[in-house]
Amino acid sequence: MKFCSHCGSAVTRRVPPGDSLPRAVCDACGSIHYVNPKLVLGSIPVWEERGKESGQARLLLCRRAIEPRYGYWTLPAGFMENDESAGQAAERETLEEAGARIELLGAFSMISVPYVNQVHVFFRARLLDLQFKPGVESLEVALFEEAKMPWKEIAFRTVGLTLKHWFADRARGAFGFHAEDIR
Amino acid sequence: MKFCSHCGSAVTRRVPPGDSLPRAVCDACGSIHYVNPKLVLGSIPVWEERGKESGQARLLLCRRAIEPRYGYWTLPAGFMENDESAGQAAERETLEEAGARIELLGAFSMISVPYVNQVHVFFRARLLDLQFKPGVESLEVALFEEAKMPWKEIAFRTVGLTLKHWFADRARGAFGFHAEDIR
Repeated sequence: MKFCSHCGSAVTRRVPPGDSLPRAVCDACGSIHYVNPKLVLGSIPVWEERGKESGQARLLLCRRAIEPRYGYWTLPAGFMENDESAGQAAERETLEEAGARIELLGAFSMISVPYVNQVHVFFRARLLDLQFKPGVESLEVALFEEAKMPWKEIAFRTVGLTLKHWFADRARGAFGFHAEDIR
Repeated sequence: MKFCSHCGSAVTRRVPPGDSLPRAVCDACGSIHYVNPKLVLGSIPVWEERGKESGQARLLLCRRAIEPRYGYWTLPAGFMENDESAGQAAERETLEEAGARIELLGAFSMISVPYVNQVHVFFRARLLDLQFKPGVESLEVALFEEAKMPWKEIAFRTVGLTLKHWFADRARGAFGFHAEDIR
């Protein structure tokens, strides 16, 4: 049983007039309670030594201190909040989870995950310094070059896909935008 | 005053343990009610006569039959629903509002609108036929070439920006991805 957040009465699930899908409708006050997918925003923080070979780019990953996927590695990411833009959400999550300051370089991936009603968006980013440290949701934070990426310990498929696209795009010398679905 | 959707008790607004922002928290059952930005998904449906000059591309717009912005022109778009991907949402809204069948060509723009807690995403699309017709939320649906676009009667800034990027990208011969904010 669900209740109306506006008046506290019980809600029923039915198709409102003019709509095509069933919604939680309050028979007492008439409120319709929509439920929509949530946006998860993250970044791909990259550290490149100046003057080094292009193979030396290293990416910042966080090892999760929370469920789901405790102990697995992820890019810094989390639920976008009200009153912020997508880019601000990516910067905030990177600071909260990795203590890392970044400069955003452009949107890179948008992956729909309809079975959990989420859309994950990642921005490419330049790590501004090496003063990162784990936030309360991370066990550790570390830089990985491509040959040492913990591919078998990546927390989420959206993160694994985004990392694979990043290395592939970098190898061909041009970063695109990747929109896809996980089913 | 707000109420808990899980138990119907009154909620209070405070920062839950381990969080950094105030949330609607139920003191009776402990539920935390998060509110996050909503995704609006739409398409840029394009009709191009084969063999014609490139200037002859025409874009499908809908004139709104609902508030806000009743009577103004928009690209077909609307709130993404649970259990669908971003691309499916764009196709569904295009069918609902314009009666139009499309083939998606790629994600094109993602515009954050933090003052209404929305993120608008548009896909480039090819209109499959000319059998479009207005849905219940549209007064009329029509094709416009660039010289005849109703620029002063566009319903939303996210739509105007997306259209301008589309014509600019087309003129330079390459479609990019455009992530930005409206403040």
